Amino acid sequence: MQTKALPGFREFYPADLALRTHIFRTWRTVAMRYGFEEYDGPPLEPLELYTAKSGDEIVGQLYNFTDKGGREVALRPEMTPTLARMVAARANGLKKPIRWFSIPQLFRYERQQRGRLREHFQLNCDLIGEPGPLGDAEIIALALDVVRAFGLGPSDVRVRLSDRRVLHALLLGAGVTEPQLPDAYEAVDKIERMERGALAQRLIAAGVSTEAAEGVFAVAALRGLAAVEAALAKVPGGPAAGASLRRVVDALAAMGLADFVEVDLTIVRGLAYYTGTVFELFDAGRTLRAICGGGRYDDLLEALGGVALPALGFGMGDVVLAELLRERGLVPADTSSIDVFLAAITEADLPHVLALAHELRDAGFRAEYALGAQAVGKQLKLADARNARFAVVIGPDDRARGEVVIKDLAGKGQAGVPRDRALERLSEMVRN
Amino acid sequence: MQTKALPGFREFYPADLALRTHIFRTWRTVAMRYGFEEYDGPPLEPLELYTAKSGDEIVGQLYNFTDKGGREVALRPEMTPTLARMVAARANGLKKPIRWFSIPQLFRYERQQRGRLREHFQLNCDLIGEPGPLGDAEIIALALDVVRAFGLGPSDVRVRLSDRRVLHALLLGAGVTEPQLPDAYEAVDKIERMERGALAQRLIAAGVSTEAAEGVFAVAALRGLAAVEAALAKVPGGPAAGASLRRVVDALAAMGLADFVEVDLTIVRGLAYYTGTVFELFDAGRTLRAICGGGRYDDLLEALGGVALPALGFGMGDVVLAELLRERGLVPADTSSIDVFLAAITEADLPHVLALAHELRDAGFRAEYALGAQAVGKQLKLADARNARFAVVIGPDDRARGEVVIKDLAGKGQAGVPRDRALERLSEMVRN
Repeated sequence: MQTKALPGFREFYPADLALRTHIFRTWRTVAMRYGFEEYDGPPLEPLELYTAKSGDEIVGQLYNFTDKGGREVALRPEMTPTLARMVAARANGLKKPIRWFSIPQLFRYERQQRGRLREHFQLNCDLIGEPGPLGDAEIIALALDVVRAFGLGPSDVRVRLSDRRVLHALLLGAGVTEPQLPDAYEAVDKIERMERGALAQRLIAAGVSTEAAEGVFAVAALRGLAAVEAALAKVPGGPAAGASLRRVVDALAAMGLADFVEVDLTIVRGLAYYTGTVFELFDAGRTLRAICGGGRYDDLLEALGGVALPALGFGMGDVVLAELLRERGLVPADTSSIDVFLAAITEADLPHVLALAHELRDAGFRAEYALGAQAVGKQLKLADARNARFAVVIGPDDRARGEVVIKDLAGKGQAGVPRDRALERLSEMVRN
Repeated sequence: MQTKALPGFREFYPADLALRTHIFRTWRTVAMRYGFEEYDGPPLEPLELYTAKSGDEIVGQLYNFTDKGGREVALRPEMTPTLARMVAARANGLKKPIRWFSIPQLFRYERQQRGRLREHFQLNCDLIGEPGPLGDAEIIALALDVVRAFGLGPSDVRVRLSDRRVLHALLLGAGVTEPQLPDAYEAVDKIERMERGALAQRLIAAGVSTEAAEGVFAVAALRGLAAVEAALAKVPGGPAAGASLRRVVDALAAMGLADFVEVDLTIVRGLAYYTGTVFELFDAGRTLRAICGGGRYDDLLEALGGVALPALGFGMGDVVLAELLRERGLVPADTSSIDVFLAAITEADLPHVLALAHELRDAGFRAEYALGAQAVGKQLKLADARNARFAVVIGPDDRARGEVVIKDLAGKGQAGVPRDRALERLSEMVRN
């Protein structure tokens, strides 16, 4: 049979899965330090859950089909609509702010590009019911502490931070009109990926004046809170529009995270979605795609779930993160070792091997033994191949003395130990 | 918007997910004690991966569709075909025996029955490359130690153990012919769920003699190894056919697991699949469906993956197991608590709260604070609502003294502590 995995889908052999486990465990550990609780939803959902949020054009990117009951369904491409439904269903009973995280596998049918996947895992953290900037700082600090927990510092990762309200005030101040704003947002979003002249032509084609187009580029070129605040001081409503951004930056500084933060208004993200703070985490060298993106979406839960609750959150995928960890040498060494390998000298010793192996496993040891009759030398080779730390050898003479032999496979000798003290002795040796 | 989860799909709110996490963690812990390594594969696979093993009739039970690239695909209904492909692709490089486990979510489109799910999670443990009965005992002991690790004993759970080779020898000895064997297997399999007379009629309709049909029922009624061995002694090739079963039972006894084991030939399982040992774990009262099922499938890897390797394994689902844990009061208490809640008396104290909260989180504490300005009393109410063990209050007077106030929220008083000793002091208090 020649069947392979579908293109864009990963198989996780044990060494690959060990890295995934390291990533998931770190995600969970840090989220729990922030008081976040884990939830999950179905990987298959009604199609309308996604079209309601993103319109029918999303269908082209989904794994969608009609199930045997005639339902239009899709593999989940994102978690937020499921989250909105679950929160809405129990909105009154849940304590606010709701601090929830999840690690869903997400699916997109994108045209296959080299190395581009059609599934990935994503840490989703959302804070629901808190309107103020401390909530924004909390969620950004969580994202930063997650990457810090992997051993990444400000020379590896930065958060690029913007605020929709700031961008709105500055663009209007630059002479962009309300109806032209979507085009101006798009130009700011594309400024690092498109040629300036082509962007200017687009803006002018959308009715933006030449002077306002220059103003759009000037806004996009602002870097740092001081420059943004200086610009805000010159436009109507500017200082008020910038108040939240300042508090977010100050709170992150109070937490000792200032070195990670770059105020940068070219972070725009989903137009119809975010209402305030938006941010992305990037590798400092900017050679990879974003590690994480998020922001405040105060209107979405009402639109999707019928419950008016302010909310913000982020998603962090496993793929770019793993690339960065590999690049920086931060992938932990493979720990597929066992503690004890037990060997029987004769067939009559086997029940004694089984009994001790079971006793050791009950005590939490990772223990193995040869499953077929083999010479002791061959059994000890298997112990080496399995990276065992200790071997226990049981033979007729040892049993006659009421003993077993414990060998330190790192070459530090061997000793006879009374059978009824074997567990205790091995526990001491593993601790040392 | 009225969208609900699809019928048969679960949403996991944090309390539900806590139980799932407990189950997954226990599964992983015990599998690793047996030296098993975790792997995973894609949840979406080519349809032919399943039809190659189970024939086209399986399609009626699958979530299958044509993807946007014209591929026939299906959500995985089981893990074994993926396992076979992954092992076959690297068969030469993998050390034998291969000890692998996985916790996939599996999907079946079954006609909806009350409470019947269309997805579940399943622990899959497989041992590949080992032909002998110690491998069978190893995999059964693993399944039993998993249920033992949940706190279940022989009065809660039993393993019903059979062997295809034993059943084959006894049925031929009873006068069933080779071509009639599939019907005889089916009768043995159904003996607890169908009326005896109806089963006898089926057998006779399949050409089985009246006497042989009585023999089939006699074989199905055998209980315990002694009775099975006595019956085997009377049929051609019987003792040889029973040798493996005896060694499996003996090995489980050597491990101290004899109280769990019931030799019972009515455990038949997939006809085209298993070649030797077959077993199922049941609740001792037999009020629930099987908790776990598995056996030896020595021919399957060659048929599916083109690599001839003996293999055996089991699957244990999360649904029946969770029912049993609930029934026996073995679901751990909800631990959604935090360690420390920090409160600021004035707005000027807030940066100090943020700094200490971040320091505590870096040290591994679960720490929270109010995200909006609130009176201290209200902040402490939130601390209670979040089940915090300790509160730290920071106010202007405390700061003037270089102190913070630590309150034990279980009512054991409060004390001022120097700010630079707060982390150390809280670490001591959490340990006590």
